[in-house]
Amino acid sequence: MRKVTLGLANSLDNYIARPDGGADWLRWSKEVAAISAQFMKSIDAILIGRKTFEVMLAHGQTSYPGGKNYVFTRSHHRRTALRKKLADRCENSVEFITEEAAVFVGNLKRRKGQGIVVFGGGLLAKALFEADLIDEIVLNVHPILLGAGIPLFYKMKKQIDLHLVDSRTLKNGNIILSYRVKH
Amino acid sequence: MRKVTLGLANSLDNYIARPDGGADWLRWSKEVAAISAQFMKSIDAILIGRKTFEVMLAHGQTSYPGGKNYVFTRSHHRRTALRKKLADRCENSVEFITEEAAVFVGNLKRRKGQGIVVFGGGLLAKALFEADLIDEIVLNVHPILLGAGIPLFYKMKKQIDLHLVDSRTLKNGNIILSYRVKH
Repeated sequence: MRKVTLGLANSLDNYIARPDGGADWLRWSKEVAAISAQFMKSIDAILIGRKTFEVMLAHGQTSYPGGKNYVFTRSHHRRTALRKKLADRCENSVEFITEEAAVFVGNLKRRKGQGIVVFGGGLLAKALFEADLIDEIVLNVHPILLGAGIPLFYKMKKQIDLHLVDSRTLKNGNIILSYRVKH
Repeated sequence: MRKVTLGLANSLDNYIARPDGGADWLRWSKEVAAISAQFMKSIDAILIGRKTFEVMLAHGQTSYPGGKNYVFTRSHHRRTALRKKLADRCENSVEFITEEAAVFVGNLKRRKGQGIVVFGGGLLAKALFEADLIDEIVLNVHPILLGAGIPLFYKMKKQIDLHLVDSRTLKNGNIILSYRVKH
């Protein structure tokens, strides 16, 4: 079974973006770039929720490099609009998924391939946690309370028990926490 | 000026208790006891929100040892009821504060004394963060997603910038993160 990792940068109060999707508070560094590049070598599939994808587009990013991008959206209307935008920008590495996220990811895990990463958002993560499909959480915790924004964790129907695998303090004051999900 | 520390145990999804106040998921150990005892030596005032205090009472705890307990409640009706309960249990180390929390704590900081700790809940922390009265955050992060509960951080009117001072992995899989607030 392929491993599914929820890999995100968050504030200490667990937001992944400002209310408008703003990411000006994110700290990038050579150290983060090296860790990220190393991790992405183990990945060939990137899962993205529809809202997160729209924020990406608004910031001029049409896909993440390093793997097939799967974007979840069940609305035909939204899908058509997004496809048009991507065609305009000659982007063809994005696939839209109309299936229930848990069903699609359950099947994807059973197919041959490398690791799978969930790059957000919180609603996609919630659906996958509730279906017990996430195996690992890696958070790049930023030293900030944003006070408001788009949440990393939504209310869930179940509790998820974790095992702390690693913590790594970065020179920029961030800390990377890695957890394994106890299935 | 006396230092004000927000010191709490939380889940990775930032809850401090289950929806009913339940704390069965909290991990106690000799290591946590030693760290806590060391910290409490620097403290002589403990700040508690009214809701958190009612949860404490429901679990049979009428005060925290190690300092004067200040409980914030502006409702005369609630205060009278709580006072009655404490008198029944011969508890006299608790003082009820009717003033606005930010005003009271602002004055308390300027008075002579040792450290001040905020033991919850999130609404009291929010009021004190918004008034820029918290100097330090120490979180005992538990390896669990509760999925629902009483939040540690509420929406705030302002952003709080932090500096990571220390992280300490405990044998039980918890991690203690210490931050200084950049005023």
